[in-house]
Parts: sequence; structure tokens; C-alpha cells
Amino acid sequence: MMPLAHKPNSQRIVAAVRDALGSPTEPLLLHGPVFAGNEWRYLKDCIDTSNVSSSGSYVTEFENRLAQYTGAAHVIATVNGTTALHLALMLAGTDRDTEVLLPSLTFVATANAVAHCGAIPHFCDVENRTMGMDAGKLADHLQSMAERRKDGCYNRRTGRRIAAIVPMHTFGHPVDLDPLLELSRRWNVPVVEDAAESLGSSYHGRHTGTFGKIGILSFNGNKVVTTGGGGAILTNDDELGQHAKHLATTAKVPHPWEFVHDETGYNYTMPSLNAALGCAQMEQLPGFLDHKRKLAQLYIKALSGLEAEGVTVFAEPPGCVSNYWLNALVLDSADEKVRDELLGALNDAHLQCRPIWRPMHMLSMYADCPRMDMAVTESLAARVINLPSSANLLDPARNGGRTAPGKAL
Amino acid sequence: MMPLAHKPNSQRIVAAVRDALGSPTEPLLLHGPVFAGNEWRYLKDCIDTSNVSSSGSYVTEFENRLAQYTGAAHVIATVNGTTALHLALMLAGTDRDTEVLLPSLTFVATANAVAHCGAIPHFCDVENRTMGMDAGKLADHLQSMAERRKDGCYNRRTGRRIAAIVPMHTFGHPVDLDPLLELSRRWNVPVVEDAAESLGSSYHGRHTGTFGKIGILSFNGNKVVTTGGGGAILTNDDELGQHAKHLATTAKVPHPWEFVHDETGYNYTMPSLNAALGCAQMEQLPGFLDHKRKLAQLYIKALSGLEAEGVTVFAEPPGCVSNYWLNALVLDSADEKVRDELLGALNDAHLQCRPIWRPMHMLSMYADCPRMDMAVTESLAARVINLPSSANLLDPARNGGRTAPGKAL
Repeated sequence: MMPLAHKPNSQRIVAAVRDALGSPTEPLLLHGPVFAGNEWRYLKDCIDTSNVSSSGSYVTEFENRLAQYTGAAHVIATVNGTTALHLALMLAGTDRDTEVLLPSLTFVATANAVAHCGAIPHFCDVENRTMGMDAGKLADHLQSMAERRKDGCYNRRTGRRIAAIVPMHTFGHPVDLDPLLELSRRWNVPVVEDAAESLGSSYHGRHTGTFGKIGILSFNGNKVVTTGGGGAILTNDDELGQHAKHLATTAKVPHPWEFVHDETGYNYTMPSLNAALGCAQMEQLPGFLDHKRKLAQLYIKALSGLEAEGVTVFAEPPGCVSNYWLNALVLDSADEKVRDELLGALNDAHLQCRPIWRPMHMLSMYADCPRMDMAVTESLAARVINLPSSANLLDPARNGGRTAPGKAL
Repeated sequence: MMPLAHKPNSQRIVAAVRDALGSPTEPLLLHGPVFAGNEWRYLKDCIDTSNVSSSGSYVTEFENRLAQYTGAAHVIATVNGTTALHLALMLAGTDRDTEVLLPSLTFVATANAVAHCGAIPHFCDVENRTMGMDAGKLADHLQSMAERRKDGCYNRRTGRRIAAIVPMHTFGHPVDLDPLLELSRRWNVPVVEDAAESLGSSYHGRHTGTFGKIGILSFNGNKVVTTGGGGAILTNDDELGQHAKHLATTAKVPHPWEFVHDETGYNYTMPSLNAALGCAQMEQLPGFLDHKRKLAQLYIKALSGLEAEGVTVFAEPPGCVSNYWLNALVLDSADEKVRDELLGALNDAHLQCRPIWRPMHMLSMYADCPRMDMAVTESLAARVINLPSSANLLDPARNGGRTAPGKAL
């Protein structure tokens, strides 16, 4: 933690943020959806053709569009990102009473999906540069506690198999994947990529979510592209891709009329109604990403003069393209009181802002899980504030991202 | 099994079914959705007000309408019926390595939801009168293998706790609940009601799904009312109702900006987009039910002259009102060849018909689960054929229930 020059001046920071946003006259949400394309048309078509359920044709169309966009060979659209991650972890070999390595600094769904497998989250620290898993620290940690056996990698302390490494791309900024993939090979533990926040983000030119054995996306209402609620599994492995689709659709064996299922499956397929929304949103994704990049640049520029206030705007790591899902202020001071004063000032100015998530190892249900030292995670948890980041904030006629339509400040 | 007079004449049966349907000129689905109300209006409103995700206002509205209709004190709308049953079972006390009593004659989701809890399905036989759990046979079975202890009921043979009894209302026909509720009290095992198929069905004047400790509904694309994909948890227990909502929404503790979660939760809440469809469908439910009742009466009448062919149409049990979700032919002969010949003839006549589900104890993944004698289940499995049952089949201008719009025979 750097020594603090002086307490940040909240009003100067609020003024700079408002300036970047062109001095908005209405309240701004942290992240609202933008529906400016074919959303109506496709939804009406769903109703007119009775094409609303998980067997509907928009599901395949949405999966195809995602495959084309991300470059993944197989895409399986699911009811949400949590269920996608649950299934992806199982397919990668996560069983009851295994352990899964994941960042403590993440949305709770990452840890919950591990618990839904009956497995135990094993928390890792992150690095300041990406806010994602610190591969160097993980290398040391594995050296200190792990053991490679014929049937996999084991935690010598707990005796449990380590089933997966789950990097997460925080706010859309790609984690440094190369050294994590190297650890995956060295220790024979598959990477399951949590790309819930990073549709549109790439690492050395390749889309996030396509590097591990399997990966996932989310299309929740607050994401870059939304389907109301939704997610997707991505994989380049043909067998895993086919198995994922089978398990997501109750493991039903194809037959014109018989109901035979050959393993314990799930009802995880996205309905066509939601996929129709997703198709309309995918058509607008390039425009959304351009807009969000411009907004990030404006935030970075507007706040660049305030380094003396002990605050910077987080920028994409080198070699990466971020979707800038959520912009983030990072304070020098790891003092929650300082952070909360600034949060109060921003929210009082009708800018919906939030701190980063409470780290997983600090939540009651995961407090006793195995973990490494958490110095960076705990510091960032007290220093990060997310700023309004909807994909239409620079559009004077914006139709989304507002707290209440037409409500003036 | 009754002695077979002679082999049913498939063509006479097909002719009677076509006659009941007014000699349709286009192919008929087993069960297609009907969108003849405010569906498009409410979906458009979702887009216009950016109200699509699980935090949207249609979720509460749909839950309120379901509560009013069913009489349940608490309704929690979920992404589908399987996830609703998973959560309902957990809330009723189903843990890892417990056993759950359920009918073998059910859609696979009932057994899967038990397995998703890490629990073991324990299969029960059904009775001919309701096609639902046979309480008399269950009473004998419990007597033979169960033991009441201070902390619950145990299977003496396996040593596992019996966590729940899960009756399922087959095709919308209410199971005989009173003797099952009596067994629940006597053995101290809660009833979790799988009412996935029985929205609109009542038992002695009270809506199905509201008798047990907790119950569930489904709104899949093939159900009486659809939300694309969706389900709901019903309960009259305030604590369970609040806990269900909390667990379905990632167990987040309310706070204006902090992300704190106090237990391992799920992302199971229905998105507003799907709930909007559900609100429009609920407005049409009384009409759907009237229509389906008329269709059932026509089937019963048209086939009443064919008892000599060894075939009858299943009618609601006494004291019950069925939603007649799926009409069913019941053959006297438990010969799959006879059934499949008739199935072939019906499908050749462009009437989409299916046998009942393969019983759970005959599926590979559940073949080794504990169970009782399955005489009635195995007999019905070879004797039941579902008939086209959409809620607009008697409407000459029907806009749903067809294989392809406008396609003539």
C-alpha cells in the first residue's frame, strides 16, 4: 500500500466524472441495457411463430452468432452464467469433495458454481495489473501444497484432488492467461475460464473464454449484451461440446416419441424468447464496444489530472483488448472510510457507483475454505469504485442507462 | 392386467380421435402454446422500459398473479420447474446422501432434481386411478423398511434418512393427497409436491401444489401456461418462502451498494422478460382450461364406443378437477408392440402422439436406486398414449398447436 499524500477531494473527483460524462442532467445507472436494434422484431416473431421455448430456433441462431464472434467451435446457450459455469466445471472433471482454484476477488457466482458441484473453493490472490489471478503467486502456492499423482493433482494438506483452475476476467479486463495455462500444463489441472464479464475482450488477439478446456459467458441484465438472464458454455473440444449440449437438455436420447435419458441431466438450455433478444443484441455489440471504449478514454482523460488526489482510472492491460464492461476508479488509499465517503458523494450526485465485491474468503460461508495470502485482494477490495458504464452514456438521445425514464436531476 | 379381447383396430381409433377433433386439415402438435392475449404488449413494454432481467417488475407481478390464483401465500418464480424442485427439496431438508420417495412414473426432472441435491431417488409405484403415487402401497413399503428416529425417518436397509415424499400430478390429474399427507405425518417426512403439470388442477377444492410443505409449478413451452422456460415455488410457510427467495437470488444481503452474500445461493430467479409472457398467459388461463375440458369431454365421448377395442380415455379422479394438460388413451393390453402400432398410426395421421415416459427405475442412471414393486408402473408404461391437447384445438381459427403455420395435410 502506497503512503497517502492526502485525503482525496470527493467533490473534485465527482466533478471530473461528471465532466467525462458531458454533465448529465438525469440520474445514471451503473450499467443499464441498450435496446436500439431488432429486439422488438425478433420478440414479436417468437410470439407469431410460437417459438419461445428451449427447442426454439433462436437458440441455435444465437449459439451460431456467438460461435462466429468468439471463434469457439461449440457454444451452448444456458439459462444463466452460474448454470453455465456449474456444467462447465462438471464437464472438466469437478466432482464432489474436489478443490477448485479461483480468485477470491470475483462475483459470488464463481464460488457458488464450485459449491454447486459439491466441491470446495480454494481461493487465490490477484495482481494489481489485471485485478485477475496472480500466476506467480499461484505457482509458489502450488509448489508449497500440491502434488502431481497419476490421476491428477492433489492438495497434500487436505488430501483432495484439485479439479480446475478458474481465472475470471474482472470487469472485462483479460487476466494474464499465458502463465496460468503454463501452470495448468505443469500441474495437469484444466483451466475453466470464467468470461462472464468479458464478451468482446481478447487476449493477444483471441477472444476470452476460448483458452481453457472450457469457458463461459453471461448475458445477465447488467452485462454488455443481455438476454434478460442467460449464459453460454464455450469450448473447442468436440466431445465436451456435444456432452455439454446433452447434459443441458436433460440428457434425452433422440427419438421421435420415446422419453429415454441416459444420464442425470439438467434443464439448463436458454429459452428461444431470451435467445431472440440475444440475437438482436449481438448485432449491436460492435457499436456497444466502440461506445464503451470511448467512454473509458474520456474517464481516463478526465481523471488523469487527479493523480495528486490519489485516484486513477483502471486501463486494459498491455496486449489485451478489454470490453470495458465496468469502468473502475482505483484509490491509492486502502481505507474503506475514504472509499465510502467518495461512494456517497458519487451516489449523491445521481451517479450509481459501487465498490468491488466483498472478497469470497471474507463471506461467512466461504471463510473456512483453503486459500493463500490475500494481500492484493484485500487491498483492492477497499480501493475500487465502479463508475456508470452503459453503452449509450455519450449519446444525447440515450434511451437506456437511466434510473427512471425522463426523470431529471 | 386384463385379458385382451382382441387386438385394437388402429384405424378405428385414429378415426375416433380425428372425429373428436373435428377432422383437422393440418398436422397437430401434442401440445403447443397459445398466444392470443397481451403477450406482445407486455414484451414490448419490457423493451421500452429496459425491464428484462430478474430484478424487473414483471417478476413480482407474475408471482402475485400466481399467488392469487393458487392461493399459495408465497410464490417464487424460477428459471424452470427443475430448478424450482431442486430448491424446494433443499428447503424441505433434502441433503447429500438422504433418500427421497417419488413415483417412478414421472418426467425425468423429478428424479434429476433429487440427484441435484446429492440425494438418492427411492422409487414408488403408482395406482391406475390417478397414475400418481399409490399411498396404500407406500404405507406397506414404509412399514417394511422405515424407522422413525428422533431426527427423522430412516431407511433401515440403507441407513439413510428419508428426506421427502414427492407426489407428482400426472398429466394434471391430482394424485390422492389425503392418504399421502397422513403418511407424511405418521412418518415425519415432509411432502414436496411436484405440480409441474397441474396449474389449474384442484384436489377437494384446493389448488395442487399448496398441500405439502412446499410445491412447484412449471411453465415450459409445452405446459398449460408458458413463459418460454420457467417454474415457480409455492409455499404457505413464511420462513420457507422468504428463504426460497433469498436462495434463488444469490443469497444477497440487501444493501444500496455492497455485495455481501450470507450463504451459498443460486441464480434461479425468472427474468422479467419471461415473467411478462407469464402475466399475459395467466390472463388467458380460465379460457385455456375451459377449452381443454371441452376437448377432454369430446375425446372421452368419441372413444366411449371403442371399449371393445380395449381402449379408454383417462378421466379426472373423483373429487378432483384436472386441467387436462395432456389427454391420454389407456390400452387394456400392456404390449408395447400393440401400443407402438397405434402410435405409428396416429403419428402417420399427423396427430403428434407419444407414449408415457420410460419409468425412472428403467433408466440406466437410476436402475440401482432403492424401490418397491413396480407392477402398475410397468403396466401403464406400456399402455398409455398421449393425444394432441393444445388449448385451441377446437377453435377453427386456431393460431397455435400446429406443426408449421399454414401447413396443410
